[in-house]
Amino acid sequence: MKKIKAAIVGYGNIGHFVLDALTAAPDFEVAGIVRRNVSDIPAELTPYKVVTDIRELGKVDVAILCTPTREVEKYAEVYLAQGINTVDSYDIHTSICDLRSRLDKVAKANGTVAIVSAGWDPGSDSVVRALLQAAAPKGITYTNFGPGMSMGHTVCVKSKPGVKNALSMTIPLGTGIHRRMVYVELEDGARLEDVAKAVKEDPYFASDETHVMAVASVDDVKDMGHGVNMVRKGVSGKTQNQRFEFNMSINNPALTAQILVGVARASMLQRPGAYTMIEIPVIDLLPGDREELIRHLV
Amino acid sequence: MKKIKAAIVGYGNIGHFVLDALTAAPDFEVAGIVRRNVSDIPAELTPYKVVTDIRELGKVDVAILCTPTREVEKYAEVYLAQGINTVDSYDIHTSICDLRSRLDKVAKANGTVAIVSAGWDPGSDSVVRALLQAAAPKGITYTNFGPGMSMGHTVCVKSKPGVKNALSMTIPLGTGIHRRMVYVELEDGARLEDVAKAVKEDPYFASDETHVMAVASVDDVKDMGHGVNMVRKGVSGKTQNQRFEFNMSINNPALTAQILVGVARASMLQRPGAYTMIEIPVIDLLPGDREELIRHLV
Repeated sequence: MKKIKAAIVGYGNIGHFVLDALTAAPDFEVAGIVRRNVSDIPAELTPYKVVTDIRELGKVDVAILCTPTREVEKYAEVYLAQGINTVDSYDIHTSICDLRSRLDKVAKANGTVAIVSAGWDPGSDSVVRALLQAAAPKGITYTNFGPGMSMGHTVCVKSKPGVKNALSMTIPLGTGIHRRMVYVELEDGARLEDVAKAVKEDPYFASDETHVMAVASVDDVKDMGHGVNMVRKGVSGKTQNQRFEFNMSINNPALTAQILVGVARASMLQRPGAYTMIEIPVIDLLPGDREELIRHLV
Repeated sequence: MKKIKAAIVGYGNIGHFVLDALTAAPDFEVAGIVRRNVSDIPAELTPYKVVTDIRELGKVDVAILCTPTREVEKYAEVYLAQGINTVDSYDIHTSICDLRSRLDKVAKANGTVAIVSAGWDPGSDSVVRALLQAAAPKGITYTNFGPGMSMGHTVCVKSKPGVKNALSMTIPLGTGIHRRMVYVELEDGARLEDVAKAVKEDPYFASDETHVMAVASVDDVKDMGHGVNMVRKGVSGKTQNQRFEFNMSINNPALTAQILVGVARASMLQRPGAYTMIEIPVIDLLPGDREELIRHLV
């Protein structure tokens, strides 16, 4: 079997778990890891090529973008134009559609495939949300997150001036309302009130109740478990009170990484263009013989 | 907007709810209803053409098969060859893959689309099962049904000699194990032990603990509510103990009908061939502008 050659771009939390998922997958080969800094390489990367430019890796089928969300587009545009599929877990919900449109043009022009916003939310949760809307077209779906660390929000806080380390916890208040509890380690001379203002004004936090607190050590309060409780009560045809619920309790970066590897696989089966997860068949995420999968899963 | 012309084939429980779902949908037109018997027409069908042969309805885009499961293939083969897409909720899990293969040939030869086994299980549950396997590739998914009436099992019991009316209830015992509680109204002179033997030997019941009881009136014990509890604990990459749960509490034929209407819509967007629900993008089940759907759901 010809294996899919995947490059990991960015080696933070997600990148680390993507390596786990790639090595556990039967149909992938790790082409290498792309990092800004190749001088200080973690021990587990010793067996792999670690480079600063993806072109040093030779043939790559798909680049799994594990960069901060705001750098996704920059990398995707370059790689798609180089003939490499890209997958990402871009998580700014309000900009997903625009990102998809822009990458769609680049992908189509270059015969490549981009699958955007493919983590768990946006991502696998989006598939469940779309399915529940199909099952009961009238009604409201509430997605309740946490309690758990939001990686996108945490990266956002870390990017603010004066912040040495940060943790943003999401607390579900029900009916899709959340509180953000932000724990920061301040740099010398930084003022908590300036950091708090910058955080609260960021689009990531602007619409939620947000509390920013200084702590001596963020590492001491960090836990990467997370959860979702999605609820829909709706109408199928003319029948009221159809009830659906989806729950999960998961290691956040591990699930994001696993979904990224699934869509990396799926990217090999789509026609050129950019897609979100609700636009690709779920079976394409899975390895193995399709008839066997249908026999086992349908 | 050009509406999709759908014919309802068979007008029992499911057919009735499909009519509800079609009239509630913004993008469908009821082309008519196909029945064996057009002499005794229910009041709610007065506004529609009721015919014995689908060709009497003029142009039909998609036939929604609401016949007993074992008649699905016969109708689908004829309609697909006539240039009409078909959708069904064929529910004999062990034969789905073969049905799909046979209809795939007919559909491809005639430029039509068949979507098979599209109810809630098989159907929307299959999509969740496939998604959970992608989210945590190693692990076991348990699908627990009920308590609720199984329509496929009930139709099966009704087909046995000596049975006037029947109800087959599914009782969840956990870890995917179920008990079947079968209530039958016997015809005069029929013996319960003969009926019980015929039921227990049927492939629908052969692998489950099954109890068959005679009742004076099946209608008095009938309730069309149903439920599912699907549980997966698995491994994402190398991370153990990822937990997922999907629950629903629903009117069974209403949900089946709503899903059938969703896949009827989706059938208009697929390339010729036969598909199960895990092979089609979830977004295709939904009406409306795709970018709007992505903005709202992803």
